[in-house]
Parts: sequence; structure tokens; C-alpha cells
Amino acid sequence: MKILLLGYGAMNKRVARLAEERGHELAGVALKKEKGDVPYPIFTDFNKLPDADVLIDFSHPDLTKHLLEADVNLPLVIATTGEKEVIVNMMEEKSRYLPTFYSANMSYGVHILKQIVEFATPLLNSYDIELTERHHNKKVDAPSGTLVKLYDAIKGIRENAEPMYNRHTYDEKRKENEIGIHSLRGGTIVGEHEALYAGHDEVITIQHKAQSKDIFANGAIDVAEKLINKEHGFYTYTNLGDE
Amino acid sequence: MKILLLGYGAMNKRVARLAEERGHELAGVALKKEKGDVPYPIFTDFNKLPDADVLIDFSHPDLTKHLLEADVNLPLVIATTGEKEVIVNMMEEKSRYLPTFYSANMSYGVHILKQIVEFATPLLNSYDIELTERHHNKKVDAPSGTLVKLYDAIKGIRENAEPMYNRHTYDEKRKENEIGIHSLRGGTIVGEHEALYAGHDEVITIQHKAQSKDIFANGAIDVAEKLINKEHGFYTYTNLGDE
Amino acid sequence: MKILLLGYGAMNKRVARLAEERGHELAGVALKKEKGDVPYPIFTDFNKLPDADVLIDFSHPDLTKHLLEADVNLPLVIATTGEKEVIVNMMEEKSRYLPTFYSANMSYGVHILKQIVEFATPLLNSYDIELTERHHNKKVDAPSGTLVKLYDAIKGIRENAEPMYNRHTYDEKRKENEIGIHSLRGGTIVGEHEALYAGHDEVITIQHKAQSKDIFANGAIDVAEKLINKEHGFYTYTNLGDE
Amino acid sequence: MKILLLGYGAMNKRVARLAEERGHELAGVALKKEKGDVPYPIFTDFNKLPDADVLIDFSHPDLTKHLLEADVNLPLVIATTGEKEVIVNMMEEKSRYLPTFYSANMSYGVHILKQIVEFATPLLNSYDIELTERHHNKKVDAPSGTLVKLYDAIKGIRENAEPMYNRHTYDEKRKENEIGIHSLRGGTIVGEHEALYAGHDEVITIQHKAQSKDIFANGAIDVAEKLINKEHGFYTYTNLGDE
Repeated sequence: MKILLLGYGAMNKRVARLAEERGHELAGVALKKEKGDVPYPIFTDFNKLPDADVLIDFSHPDLTKHLLEADVNLPLVIATTGEKEVIVNMMEEKSRYLPTFYSANMSYGVHILKQIVEFATPLLNSYDIELTERHHNKKVDAPSGTLVKLYDAIKGIRENAEPMYNRHTYDEKRKENEIGIHSLRGGTIVGEHEALYAGHDEVITIQHKAQSKDIFANGAIDVAEKLINKEHGFYTYTNLGDE
Repeated sequence: MKILLLGYGAMNKRVARLAEERGHELAGVALKKEKGDVPYPIFTDFNKLPDADVLIDFSHPDLTKHLLEADVNLPLVIATTGEKEVIVNMMEEKSRYLPTFYSANMSYGVHILKQIVEFATPLLNSYDIELTERHHNKKVDAPSGTLVKLYDAIKGIRENAEPMYNRHTYDEKRKENEIGIHSLRGGTIVGEHEALYAGHDEVITIQHKAQSKDIFANGAIDVAEKLINKEHGFYTYTNLGDE
Repeated sequence: MKILLLGYGAMNKRVARLAEERGHELAGVALKKEKGDVPYPIFTDFNKLPDADVLIDFSHPDLTKHLLEADVNLPLVIATTGEKEVIVNMMEEKSRYLPTFYSANMSYGVHILKQIVEFATPLLNSYDIELTERHHNKKVDAPSGTLVKLYDAIKGIRENAEPMYNRHTYDEKRKENEIGIHSLRGGTIVGEHEALYAGHDEVITIQHKAQSKDIFANGAIDVAEKLINKEHGFYTYTNLGDE
Repeated sequence: MKILLLGYGAMNKRVARLAEERGHELAGVALKKEKGDVPYPIFTDFNKLPDADVLIDFSHPDLTKHLLEADVNLPLVIATTGEKEVIVNMMEEKSRYLPTFYSANMSYGVHILKQIVEFATPLLNSYDIELTERHHNKKVDAPSGTLVKLYDAIKGIRENAEPMYNRHTYDEKRKENEIGIHSLRGGTIVGEHEALYAGHDEVITIQHKAQSKDIFANGAIDVAEKLINKEHGFYTYTNLGDE
């Protein structure tokens, strides 16, 4: 598979390394302007991108929109964070003749964690839910974006749910609709997310642990490998399939 | 709710205590013959059982079959272990005019664990699966019956799966279709079951922990509370519903 | 062993039941005045307590002080919470001629957890520490008293430590001296405490799980069994010994 | 710090990369003969090694012995696996005038795990112990070398301990002196080790998780940074100190 990258930040560098390790070829990097340290051909005219099987984008909304405005004819794997609505709209336009894929989190496991939580939550109506995530000590935001997504998925099912971020300031017992949100930070932990369902004398726990940021880069390559065999259309993890 | 018990062993004693704590009434105990230490009315003629809302059975196949041969007109919660096929056949006969429920494991959480594993396994085709259970140091069998059920559920999905009980004697790497089976024993651990899915740089874990044997007794009472409002028919956790 | 109880609340009822299961005898219950539902002899004159091998106290500071003011001649296991300083002072007086034991938490395992944390913390100077506890949904205070003790033990070693109860309101990365404190609440969880040490690419976790409130009652009986063979003196878990 | 490497296999390549990331300098690589893909000066005469602050050895016993026979005048960090006794003897000779360090496992956390287990085990005499390790699906041996060390440490304290590798073939309850040994294999798990102590209604768990093989390379660099400030002598993790 011949891959064209959009952007060359930390994550696309990782994609390049892992793609080559997996036997793929790099067609080059699409960038707005020339850049020094890129060991691949650089393409700045997005209307004249080179021949390739797929494009992988781990850049930022500005560059993504610039791409989607151009005359592009490649299957697109878009993993940008931010401006989701605008970008998805622009992608749907392209999807009329190209296969395109969108996810703000390219970890397949995290996607499945969310699916399992959506499956389990309605079966465990009488159980109290608590959500915990663990990340490295450099992470600025809390809770993590993935935990927010898990919470939102649960809130879609338990409509009266309310997040509880800090029990320390209260001196009362847990309310039934409370969902505790806990953010641990330490060392270089890559990312762990956990939903705990506590019932009467029994507890069910569903947990995902990422061991390396490679999962996001490998996830994008996995998606690309599937996408190039698809018909035109707009894909996410939900309809891409798992064969 | 007025409960009639079938048998009065350790588990039904627990049902009696918890049912009273939950505000239910005990109509008595059905037994083949009188027994000394039963603090409730005893009924030995199964064709003339007293008025009650439901019968709960934590006895043994002999007594259960004896019940199912009699002229019984109560919703039945059958939690006997053993002779499953015979008993279910006899229950289906009764189900033409009574609501009847059968499960060899009355923990709702364990049932949901199995459902989650059945949901997750086909979504995680490329992940290695390992199963672990932890129980108290008096348990004689290994692996536990519940772990065997989890394994069977997975084997139904990954047809070429093979159990691996002892890696110590081998000096080779894991085969793809291997499913490690691990039985920890110690102290008074009530029961923990865990399915681990290990993929490329990510791991998903699904775990159930029982904290007290009360879950089985409470599980039977929970089922009874639902069953008395049901139409006649044969119910299991799969079609009983969760409202 | 012949046990005299001080008070007859939920915890001492449990002590009575477990002591009898373990083959001990109940000499009765010391109370300020007669009480209806006590199935043992009641003694209200604390200067004339009956013959017994040991006294176990799970009452409250008032009753404990009343006992310690009286002319008592029994080994004393005091498990009252509150007014620690006053009570320990009064106990030290008695300790000149009696063996006396004091702990506000009668779980041996929790005591060992604290010892392990005190052992490990100075060996893991460069690791970030986060503390988590899980309890049932009826618990009013957060964090638990045991977690506070663990934190205090760590603070004794890392003097510039500061607790962090709520990362949600901050938008900055973890400070080095921060110790995250996390209180999960759900179902009927008896009590779990966990210290996580996160370093560079490695994590050490030390965890204690209580499965039943029986551990506190059994802990007091275990201590009583040891205490009756001791010389006079003031004992805690630290100097009682473990043989 | 100027580092000379002995050998240039997978682990020393990692040391080279991480040492440079941490701002150290590579003096070159000592090898028996020239080798193609080494991006540093190669030195094949071990009696004429270049000027450097420390030597790090992740090679194999043959090369290590070759080094220790030569006229070497550098602080030595030896992380070879195998022929421990011979190598330690040769190192003690050098230790009369050089600081030398030896460990077959350069993870500081694993070393501390072992210390914690040695501390906790005698305090938990009445608890059942079970040991579990998890590694990637390419690992050939089971249990892991680190688990064997943990078991040996416990066996040194509980002298009648016996390992139990396979409960599946037995139909009897756990013996008191049994120590269950469990080896999970899956995906790319780097390495997890866990000691579980199960008592009466309470469980203590002590766990170490490695997230990347970098811990071994970084561990060697950490040791080197300390060793260069030490007097001559033979050091291990036990006497190197932690300041």
C-alpha cells in the first residue's frame, strides 16, 4: 500500500515509521509549505497530489479543511481532532465518489470499549457507575476526551445522569444518578479507561489499557488497509467492519 | 410476596433470611419428610402445597423432579445444578400454564458477564483471549463451572479455540487459537471471573467480582419478583427482561 | 476464651456471632443500662464485671471512657473510633498492670497495607503517587478514614506532599508533589484501598480489598486471642507480633 | 556522561537511542569484530578501550567474560543474563579498584517489587499466596524469570512452599503450602507481575507493570549515572542506594 501523509507532526512520524515496518511505502507528505526535516517528497499543491493508495491525516483542522477543499482523488483516513461538524460535512461531499473514514480517536480498542459500555449499561440499570481514567503526568486536561465520550454514551442511556468530580467537598451519600469521574495522573501512563458497575454484592468492571501511542498510528494504518477495498462512502468504526 | 421454598439447605436458609430482610413472607418449606431445625411450616405432600406467590428451589435434581411430577400451581424459580436437560424438559411442560424460570447460576452479574463476553468476542477477532478465575481455598474443582461456561461461549464464536491449562510444561510460544485458563485459589474469595483480550499495544479486560454468596439468594428473589408478574412460559435470564 | 463485650451495636453483634462460630464463649455484655434485644447477660455496674478472659469494645468514646474509669481487671481490646488521645492516655494507665490493645481499624490487612506503603514509599522517590478507595453508596464521608491514614503516612515521608481532590477544575499538568485522592462509591463495596506508584514506563500498585465487615470483628477476636497471653503493657498492631 | 557500549544487540541499540535523548554521549561500541550497521566507532581490542565515563553491557556471557579478562579501567554496568556465578566472581576481582554493578534484570521497579514481597510475606503468614505474570504471545518460557525470582524469594521465607502449576488435573482443595503459578500470554504485553495474598475476608495485591522495554535500557543508564560517583566496589540494586 502506498501512503500519502497529510502533515508531519509527532503522530504522522510514527505512522511513517510503523507503515514502513509493516511493509508499506510512503508516497510523501502533503504540507502547505516546504519543511526541513522531512525525509520524504513534499507536496504543497493539494490539487496535484501524487499517485498513492490512501491518504492518512493526523494534522489539524486548518490543514484538513484545506485538503477537503482541493481536488483530491484518494481514499481518506482523517484523524484530526476539532471542528468535527465542519470536517464531517466536507467529508460527506467527498464520500459521494471516494471512501472516506473519520475518527478523532484511532484506537480500535477504545472504540470497542465504548461499544461494550453501550451494550452493558442498559443491562445493568440498577448498578451504580463510576468512571476512572489514568494518564501520564504531563496531560493538561482532566478528564480525558475519551472519558468524556464514555460519559456521554452513558448519559445517552441514563438520561438523568450527573457527573460527580469531587466527593471530598460533600458530606452526603452517593445519589443514585451520580456518575463518579476520576482522573489519575502519574509517570508515563499512556492511557487507561475503566467503567465500574457496582450492584448488590457484585461488581462488573470493563477496562481498556493502551500500552503505547503506536495504537493510534497502527489504528490508522489498519483502517487504511480496509478502506482501500471499500466502495465510496462515509465510514467510521461503526460501519467499517471487522473482517 | 409470599415465598414457598423447596429444600432447606445452606442456600435456601440464606434465601429465607434475605427474603424476610427485604419484607417478604415465608409460606413454608416443601420437603420430602419432616426435618428438625426448620423454623417454618413444612409441607411433605407436593400435591397439596400451601397458598403462595412463588416457589424458589435451591435443592437438588431429585427433589426438583419430585416437584415437577406433582400437581403444582405456583410460578417456579428453579436454581438446581445438574440433570439440566431432564429438568428443563419437565419445566417446559409446566410452562404451558405457569411462568417458570431456570438458571444453574442465579447471579445476574455473572449472566451479564457472559453476555458481554459474547458481545465483545466477535468484535475482537485479532485479540488473544485469556480467562482467569479466583475462588476460596476450599473449592475442589478447577476451573469453576462459570469459567467453563465463559469458555464454551467463546468456543461457540471461535470454533478452533483450544484451552491451555498449563504453560509450564511447554517451551514454545502461544498458539493463536489457544485460550489460557487460570484458576487462582486463596483465602475466602467468593468468586471472580475475568476475560482478558490482548491485542497490539492494547488490552481490554472484562471482570465480574462476587462479594458474598448472598448474590445467588438475592438473585433468586429478584427473579421471583419479576416472574410473578409474567404470563405463563419458560424463562431464563435471556428473556426475563430487566425493567 | 470467655469474652465480655462492651456495647452491643452492629459490630459487637457480629463479634458475638463470629466468636461463637469460632468456639468461644460469651460472658455477657457490659452496658450503661438494660437493653431489650440482648441474648446475653447484661452488666451495668462496671466495677463488678463478671469473670472473663478478655473484653472487646466496639462501642463509642463515652462508654469506653466510662469503662476506663472503672475498676476493671481484664485484658482490653479497644476498637472505638474518636477521642483517640484521651482514650490512649487512660489505657496507658491501665497498661501498668493489664495487657491493653488499641486500634481504630481492626483489619489486620489494612494495617499491613499501611506498613507496606511506608516501606515502599522511600524506595520509590521518583514515582508519582495516587491513592484510590472504593466503598458502598451509603458511605457519607470521602475520602475514607483509612485513606487519610495512608496519605498521612506518605506525608510523613514526602514532607512537601499536597493532596489533589479534583483535577477537573484545573487545566494544568500534575505537580510533582501532588498526591491524587480518589473516592469511588457504588453498590455494597465493603472497602478497597490502593496506592499507585507511577514511574518512567513502570507502575507499582499495592492494594487491599475487604470482602466483608467480618474482618473487623474477626480482627478483634484474633487480637484478643493473642492479647490474653501477653504481659501487661500497651499494645497496637505494631508491637503485638504476628506469630 | 560518555558511555561505551559492550555489544550492539536490540537492547544496547535502545540504550544508545535513550542515552542520546537524555543528553549523554556515546563513546562507541566494544565488539569482538567489526560489524556493518553500527553508527558509532567500533573497538575490538578490549585492552585498548577508548576514554569514557562508564561501560554498559547488555551482551551475552561470552563477550562479558572476554571483557572481564581484559585490562579495563571503566566503571562497569553488567546486565548480561546467564553464567551469573562466573561473571560475579570475575567482577569482584575488578571491584577491588573499580565500581562495578551487576543485575540480570535492569528494571528498578521489578527489583522493588521483589523487596516489597520479601517485606510483606513474613507479615502475612496466614495468607495464601498466588503468583501471576502476563507477557506477550511470543514469549517462549513460562513462568517468566522474574516470577521464578519472586517465588524463590517467598520460598526463602516459607520453606515448605511448593509451586502449583496446573490445578486443572487435580480434584482436591488447595494445600496450605501451595503457591499457584499462573502465566498469561497475549498480544504485546511487555510484562506484569503480581503477588496476591488471600486471607480471611481480605486480599492484598502487590503488582508491577512494565509498559515498555525502555525500562531496562533506562534502568541501566540510571545505574550508570549513580555508579560513576561511587567508590570502587561491587554493587547491586541492594547497596547502590536511591538518592
